[in-house]
Amino acid sequence: MRKERVTIKDIAKALGVTPTTVSRALNGGERISEKTRNKVIALAKEWNYRPNMVARNLQNQSSKTVGVVIPEFNHNFFSVMLHGVEDKIRELGYQMLVGSSGRDYDQEKRTCFQMSDAKVDGLLIALSQDTEDYSYLNEIRNLGIPIVLLDRICEDIDTSVVITDDFNGAFKAVNHLLEKGHQRILHVKGEEGISTTFNRYMGYVEAIQRKGLILDTSLIINSDDKALLKEEIKASFEKENRPTAIFTCSDYLAFVVLETIKELGLSVPHDVSIIGYADEPISTYTSPKLSTIKQPSFEMGKKAVEILFDYEKADQHQHVVMDTEIILRESTIN
Amino acid sequence: MRKERVTIKDIAKALGVTPTTVSRALNGGERISEKTRNKVIALAKEWNYRPNMVARNLQNQSSKTVGVVIPEFNHNFFSVMLHGVEDKIRELGYQMLVGSSGRDYDQEKRTCFQMSDAKVDGLLIALSQDTEDYSYLNEIRNLGIPIVLLDRICEDIDTSVVITDDFNGAFKAVNHLLEKGHQRILHVKGEEGISTTFNRYMGYVEAIQRKGLILDTSLIINSDDKALLKEEIKASFEKENRPTAIFTCSDYLAFVVLETIKELGLSVPHDVSIIGYADEPISTYTSPKLSTIKQPSFEMGKKAVEILFDYEKADQHQHVVMDTEIILRESTIN
Repeated sequence: MRKERVTIKDIAKALGVTPTTVSRALNGGERISEKTRNKVIALAKEWNYRPNMVARNLQNQSSKTVGVVIPEFNHNFFSVMLHGVEDKIRELGYQMLVGSSGRDYDQEKRTCFQMSDAKVDGLLIALSQDTEDYSYLNEIRNLGIPIVLLDRICEDIDTSVVITDDFNGAFKAVNHLLEKGHQRILHVKGEEGISTTFNRYMGYVEAIQRKGLILDTSLIINSDDKALLKEEIKASFEKENRPTAIFTCSDYLAFVVLETIKELGLSVPHDVSIIGYADEPISTYTSPKLSTIKQPSFEMGKKAVEILFDYEKADQHQHVVMDTEIILRESTIN
Repeated sequence: MRKERVTIKDIAKALGVTPTTVSRALNGGERISEKTRNKVIALAKEWNYRPNMVARNLQNQSSKTVGVVIPEFNHNFFSVMLHGVEDKIRELGYQMLVGSSGRDYDQEKRTCFQMSDAKVDGLLIALSQDTEDYSYLNEIRNLGIPIVLLDRICEDIDTSVVITDDFNGAFKAVNHLLEKGHQRILHVKGEEGISTTFNRYMGYVEAIQRKGLILDTSLIINSDDKALLKEEIKASFEKENRPTAIFTCSDYLAFVVLETIKELGLSVPHDVSIIGYADEPISTYTSPKLSTIKQPSFEMGKKAVEILFDYEKADQHQHVVMDTEIILRESTIN
């Protein structure tokens, strides 16, 4: 595979055709034989040809539409992200074709191809949790549609991504608790098999170890089963050397923890401090209000659109890691 | 203005042109003089011509896209509605162009015309709160794009609507409290000038009066200023004949009420029962969990799409009023 940036001219030269012919072949234009089209597509694929959005719009009639695929509408993080995407898209005079995958791989794939058929100028995707085979995204990209991934990293496809620094966010949360004197900090992990769960767990581990404390794996609890989760939390509070603080992988998990601590007859934050993750709207409606880590979802959406339209840097993929912020409310003694 | 259903044939006959010419004129087709086009559009407007979606798709190349305009993405009611819309649209093999108005009239208008330019096959709109002049929607409809309004009624434009029965929802809430023996029920009104606020207020009034009680207007509180709202609630609890229950126009207002009652040192539901409105996700995260009125937002979205595609009944507008459900949780003694 060639490593430099491949242009339409390179492909044209190699096949002995004009750049216009290559452009037509890649963009589904008329007046070109099926044989030539296939040859061009095959070489573009082999050389991993990536058009940039602006150049593409100059070459063919743009639909002035960006496709956006998110796991679900009814989730605050994605709603706010969508708002950021729309803000920027509108500023650029484009429109937004939106679809959700319902966290289902097949539906995600279908939705992406539908958008490609609708000739979107670019595609922003927050991958579903179930996605495993990403090769179809390369297919779509080879059709000339640039892709930016949001929120979740995918190793199989070499494209621009916009993510938040989950490792550092978790580190901040746990480090704050350590600085307030907590030594035994429970961690409730998120859903297994997702990069965000792993990175937040690693941030917890790093903070503990950098403080010179020994990692006690009995303080790390899985959350796959809610009833079991409550039991395990209660069990850890029955031990002699009980935890004084809890860091959870999400605000929803923090809410379950809050319920459990109340059931134990303990008080938050006086007996136990809690920090959640994501700054969901619910975090201000619990009693006490949750301390949490805020992700810049609105800004992530805007940034992803900027990258999609970024002409100058289009010859290299961008890997943007956005910072998080610790929000201290009533579930910690601050 | 003609009252019967106007067809393309009627317009063609009146102008002495072919139906194909009328269709081309209305759908922006080529090979037709500017003069003829203007004549056709003028008459279609005068006669209030409304094409139906299926017929339109047969006549011209459909974009297989439905435009959806909502006030904001980051609001649970609209997110869930969007989910319902997408479910049905996907089933029909269509796609969804989505835009938000940000509760701003100008942006709403711009977004609707953008979608019309993008040749959407139909438009679903949940109007912004600020919208006043709806005539532009008639313009869009005269271009041959059917419109269904969601959630809020608009008297100026004669089109299909899908709304919930706010009057009855409020009646149910207040009637439940009356049946539990409450006689002095406070009502916290929503934002002024919106049909939903008015209808919920009227439902409250109806329940009180049907029970044979006298309406005490000192029990009706405006919510425009949050600080003032808290003061007024507190003042009403200092009176001798204090309220024993509160019905609020939204779950968010119920949350403010909950905070205020706690500040007064009173207990919910033992001293005061509270019922909110909308079944927002927050209603299960407050302590105690909120009793509330659930609106079928997902089903509303699906229904709106069904009406848009409803060929049989396309010659008459549909006015669908969907029922609500009372959800009893911990903020009432049930």
